[in-house]
Amino acid sequence: MRPATKLALTAAAALPLAAGCREQRPNIIFFLIDDNGWTDSQVAYGDEVYPYNLRYDTPNMLRLSQKGVIMTSAYACPLSTPTRTALMSGMHAAHERITTYGALTKDTPTDAAGGTTGIINDNPDDPFARSDWNWNGIQPCEGIDHSVAVTPLPALLRDAGYQTIHVGKAHWAPGGTPGASPYNMGFNVNVAGSNAGYPRSHLGEDNYGNTKELWQGNAVMNLSEYYGSPTFLSDALTREAIKTLEDPVRTGRPFFLYMSHYATHTPIQPDARFYQKYRDRGMDDGQAKYASMCESCDASLGALMDWLEAKGVADNTVIILYADNGGHSIDARKGGVPHTQNAPLREGKGSCYEGGIREPLLVYVPGKTIGGMRINTPVGPEDFFPTILEMAGVESYSTKQKVDGQSFLKLIAEGSKFASSALKRGELPTQKDANRLVIPASISGMDPMRPIISHMPHQWRIEDQPDIDFMSSVRSGDWKLIYRMHNIMGMEFIRTGASKAYAAAPGEAVSCGVFELYNLADDISESHDLAASEPDKVAALAKMLGGRLREWDANMPVVRSTGRRVPWPDELL
Amino acid sequence: MRPATKLALTAAAALPLAAGCREQRPNIIFFLIDDNGWTDSQVAYGDEVYPYNLRYDTPNMLRLSQKGVIMTSAYACPLSTPTRTALMSGMHAAHERITTYGALTKDTPTDAAGGTTGIINDNPDDPFARSDWNWNGIQPCEGIDHSVAVTPLPALLRDAGYQTIHVGKAHWAPGGTPGASPYNMGFNVNVAGSNAGYPRSHLGEDNYGNTKELWQGNAVMNLSEYYGSPTFLSDALTREAIKTLEDPVRTGRPFFLYMSHYATHTPIQPDARFYQKYRDRGMDDGQAKYASMCESCDASLGALMDWLEAKGVADNTVIILYADNGGHSIDARKGGVPHTQNAPLREGKGSCYEGGIREPLLVYVPGKTIGGMRINTPVGPEDFFPTILEMAGVESYSTKQKVDGQSFLKLIAEGSKFASSALKRGELPTQKDANRLVIPASISGMDPMRPIISHMPHQWRIEDQPDIDFMSSVRSGDWKLIYRMHNIMGMEFIRTGASKAYAAAPGEAVSCGVFELYNLADDISESHDLAASEPDKVAALAKMLGGRLREWDANMPVVRSTGRRVPWPDELL
Repeated sequence: MRPATKLALTAAAALPLAAGCREQRPNIIFFLIDDNGWTDSQVAYGDEVYPYNLRYDTPNMLRLSQKGVIMTSAYACPLSTPTRTALMSGMHAAHERITTYGALTKDTPTDAAGGTTGIINDNPDDPFARSDWNWNGIQPCEGIDHSVAVTPLPALLRDAGYQTIHVGKAHWAPGGTPGASPYNMGFNVNVAGSNAGYPRSHLGEDNYGNTKELWQGNAVMNLSEYYGSPTFLSDALTREAIKTLEDPVRTGRPFFLYMSHYATHTPIQPDARFYQKYRDRGMDDGQAKYASMCESCDASLGALMDWLEAKGVADNTVIILYADNGGHSIDARKGGVPHTQNAPLREGKGSCYEGGIREPLLVYVPGKTIGGMRINTPVGPEDFFPTILEMAGVESYSTKQKVDGQSFLKLIAEGSKFASSALKRGELPTQKDANRLVIPASISGMDPMRPIISHMPHQWRIEDQPDIDFMSSVRSGDWKLIYRMHNIMGMEFIRTGASKAYAAAPGEAVSCGVFELYNLADDISESHDLAASEPDKVAALAKMLGGRLREWDANMPVVRSTGRRVPWPDELL
Repeated sequence: MRPATKLALTAAAALPLAAGCREQRPNIIFFLIDDNGWTDSQVAYGDEVYPYNLRYDTPNMLRLSQKGVIMTSAYACPLSTPTRTALMSGMHAAHERITTYGALTKDTPTDAAGGTTGIINDNPDDPFARSDWNWNGIQPCEGIDHSVAVTPLPALLRDAGYQTIHVGKAHWAPGGTPGASPYNMGFNVNVAGSNAGYPRSHLGEDNYGNTKELWQGNAVMNLSEYYGSPTFLSDALTREAIKTLEDPVRTGRPFFLYMSHYATHTPIQPDARFYQKYRDRGMDDGQAKYASMCESCDASLGALMDWLEAKGVADNTVIILYADNGGHSIDARKGGVPHTQNAPLREGKGSCYEGGIREPLLVYVPGKTIGGMRINTPVGPEDFFPTILEMAGVESYSTKQKVDGQSFLKLIAEGSKFASSALKRGELPTQKDANRLVIPASISGMDPMRPIISHMPHQWRIEDQPDIDFMSSVRSGDWKLIYRMHNIMGMEFIRTGASKAYAAAPGEAVSCGVFELYNLADDISESHDLAASEPDKVAALAKMLGGRLREWDANMPVVRSTGRRVPWPDELL
C-alpha cells in the first residue's frame, strides 16, 4: 500500500460519518433575515404582485426564487426568540414554552417589560398575569431554571462532520447562560452571535454600537476592523461569512453556514449604498431606510451566491432564505402608516394574524428542487431541524428533546416536480392557480392540511396592542381560527391604527369576539370574520388548537381575578 | 475500488499539504501571557530561585518545565504590540517600525498619548518629537497608511491544513483596519480577539466590561454566557479554547491554538479562586490580586494540559509558554514598591533593561525536547515565526515581508540532548552551571552570541519614565549595551522609585551617560555600569546596534531644536 493511500484511509477513519456518502453531502446556507415581512421583497409569494413587492429592489432574492422553490405558506412565530429556538431544537415554540422574545440577562421575563432593560414588569393593571414560560431560552445542558435542554441542530451537523459556522444574530438564550454562546450550540465558528436580540446600530460609523455614548448591551461584536467605516452591518457580516467559508471550501469539508442578519430589525437605519434611490422614488425617510435595509440583505445574498459560483461550489450548496417573524407594523421609525406595513396581510410582528407569522421562504436544493415552482403546503420553524438533517444525510441521531417538526425535503423535491408537470400541462395559467395547486400527501409525504399553530400568550410591550397581545391561532388548509384570549374578559379596545383589516374607524372602540374565523383563500387580509356563520369550523379548529396546546403543556396566562389559567380554546365551546 | 477507498482518496486530494506527512504533524498551542515577568512563576529561569519565584503558585508551569525545555534567555519587546506583531510576521519590531503599543482607533499614535484614548498628544515639551512609526500596525494587505503588509503566520499554517484558532487578546492593529480581525490574519476561529490591548475588566461580575458604566472600547467580546458569573476572564477563555479544540481533535485535523490571555495585564483584579490564599500569606491587596492573576494563567495551562491528556493527544501537541513583555513596574495597582516587581531584573514593562524584555519561555516538543533542560541561547519574538512553521512541517512558503527570525527548533532539540548529556556526565552540578552551558552553533545551528536588539524610541506615557523612554539596547553573549537617547541632551532625571539597580537614593537627581554597559553573567540587575572601563565593548556593541537599526531603517525620534534625527548609537562614538 502506498503512503498516500495509507494516509487517506487514516483520514477517512477519523471522520465520524459513514464514508460512502461523504462526498455527496451538500453545503448548506441558512440565510435568515430578522423582522422581515412576506411582502418585503420582489418575490411575490401571494396570488398577485402586491404594492409592497414593487417597493424593494431584491434582484438576488428573485434570482434565488428562480433557482429554488417558492414556499408560499411558510410560517414563523410572531417573535424572534421562539422562531430561533425552534430552528435549533425542532420543537414547536409552544412545546418549548418559549413564546416571546428573550432578554439580555438571565431570569428576566420580557413580557410587558417594556424592552430589554432587565426590569421585570408584571403589569399589575392587566387582567392577566404572566404565564410561566421559559424565559431563559434553550440550553445545551440541563439545570438552568426556566429553560429547555435540547440537542441543538448545529451540534448534530458538527458531529456528522460539517463545519458549522454562525454569523450574526443568535438570541436563543440570555447572557449568563450557556445557551447564549453559539459555541455551546454546536457551532465551530461564531462571528457576532451573542445574547443580543438586535444591534445597537447597523452603522460602521457608530462602531455598531461600540461607543461610550451608544453602548447598551447589544453592540455587535467581532467587527472592529470596520469601525468608523461606512460598512453597513449586513455587508460586514457577509464579508466575515465569506472569510469563514474559505477554509471548508479549500479543504473539501461540507459546511453549514447560519447566516443570521440583524437587518431588517430596528433600529431602522440607512444603508447608504441604497437609501437615496428610495428617497428619490418618493418614500419618506423611514420607508427609504427600511427599504435600504431590505436591499442590504439582498446584496448579502447576492454576494454569497456570487462567491459560491466563483468557487465552483454553487451546484453543491443548498440555500434556504427565511425570516424569523413578520415585518414590524407598530414602529414609527419604519415610516409610513402603522399597522399597514405587511399589506395585504393584517398586522405584523408579534401578532398571530398573517402579517406577524407569514414569511418569505425560498429553498434551493441542487439536483432536487425545480426552479420557480410554488408550493403552498404550510411549513413552520420546527420543520427546518429534520429537513436540514435530511439534506445533510444525517439519518440517525438522538436528541434530548422530542422533535415536533417534519422534514419537508420530499415536499420540495417531489412537490416541485409535481408542480412542474402541472405547469407543463398548462394547468397553472396564473400565479394564483399555481398558489392553489394542492400537492397530495401521497406525493409529498406531508399532509397539506397539517395544522400551523401560533401561540403568543403574552403582552408584548407595556402599551396594549389589541391585535397582538394574548392570542393563539391555528391554520388548517384555507381556514384559520384566531383565539383572542383577552376577549374572554369582554374587553373592548380602542383602535389605534389604520389597518384596513379593522372594521371600525381610528379612535373608535372595537369589540371583538373570543374567536375569529377566516378563509385565507378568499381573505388573505383576515378582514371578514366568519366565526358566527361557521360554528362547526370554529369548533373543529378550536379543538385542534386546544388539543395540541394541551399535548405540549403550553404556557397560558392566568386570570388575576380568579387565579386560574386562561381556558384552552375548546373549553369555551 | 471500494467506495470507502475512493472517498478517502478524494478527501486526501483536497488537502493542500503533501499527504505523506500529514499524520505526523503535531498540534501546537502557543500560550501567551500578557505583561508577565521573568520571575512571575515558580519556574526559576535565573541562576537561583529568587524571592519572586517563591511568591506565586504555578504548579502547571513547573509541570510544563519538566516536560519541555527552559529557555533562560528569551526576550520580548518592551511593549505588547511590537512583540505580538513580530510573532505574526517574523520581523524584528524595529524592522516593522512598530515599537510601542497600538491604539484602539486607527491613525492614532499612542506615544505620549496617555493611554488608548485616541487623543494624539505630541508632548511639545519634550526635546524629542515623535518618530515616524507604523502606528496602524501590521496588516494582511497593502494600502493602509503607517502599517506593514505581511503574510501572517496563521495564514501559512491554515494554508498548510492546520485548524487555526485565536482565543484572547489580538492587538496587532487598531480598529477600522483589517489587521484588527484575527480572521484576516489567517485564523479560522476567533474568540475575543479584537483591536483591544487590554480588558476593561477580568471579572464575570462586570461582564468583562460590557456594562454601561464600565464600557470603554475594550470590553471583552464573545463571552456573554459568563456575564454575571464569578468566572474570571482567564478561566472563561480557557473554557472557550477547549470548546474550539473539540472539533479538530475529533476530526484528526492538526490545530494551532493561539491562547492569548489578557491576564496578567491591568486592571489588576482578584481571581477569587486564588486571591485570599495570597492575602493570608501577607501580601497587600494589589500583590495578592496580581498573584491570583498569575495563578489564573497557570490554572488555564493546567486545564489545557489535562484536556490534552484526557483526549490522548498530549503526546502530539507542542506547547509553548511565553509572555509579551516584562511585568509592569510602575503601576500602583500591583501593590508593592514601584520599580522592583521584576527583581532581580531592573525595571519592567516598557524598558530595555532586562525587567522589560526578559521573559518566561517553556517549549515542549513531543519527541524532540528533553524535559527540564535549560538552554541559554537567546531568542526573540521574531524567532517564533520560522520555528512554529518548522514544527508544523511547513518547509516552503513565501511571505510579503522579509523574515528576520531564525528557527530555534534545532536549538531546543539538539540543545536539550547536549545539555542532558552534560548533566549525565556530572558537568552541571548547579542551576547556575546549567544556565552557563554554552551550546555551540555547530550543535544547535544558532550562534550563542547572536545579538538581541531592543528598541523603544518613544515616550511611553505622558509622565517621563527615565529608565523606560527613548532607549535601545543590544545584548551579545554576556554583554549588554544600553543607549539612552534622551541623554544626548545632557538631561538629568529625578529618581522616582526604589529599584536597587539605581545608585542614587530616591528623590536624588541622577545623571546617566548616553551609553551604559553591563555584564549580565555577573550583574543580572544591570546595576554596575562598565561603560567607562570597557570602551572597546561599548564601541563594538554600539556598532552592532547602529548597524542593525540602519539596516532595518528603524524609526528614530527627531530632536525638536535641530529638526534632525536622533543619532544612531555608533554616530556618537
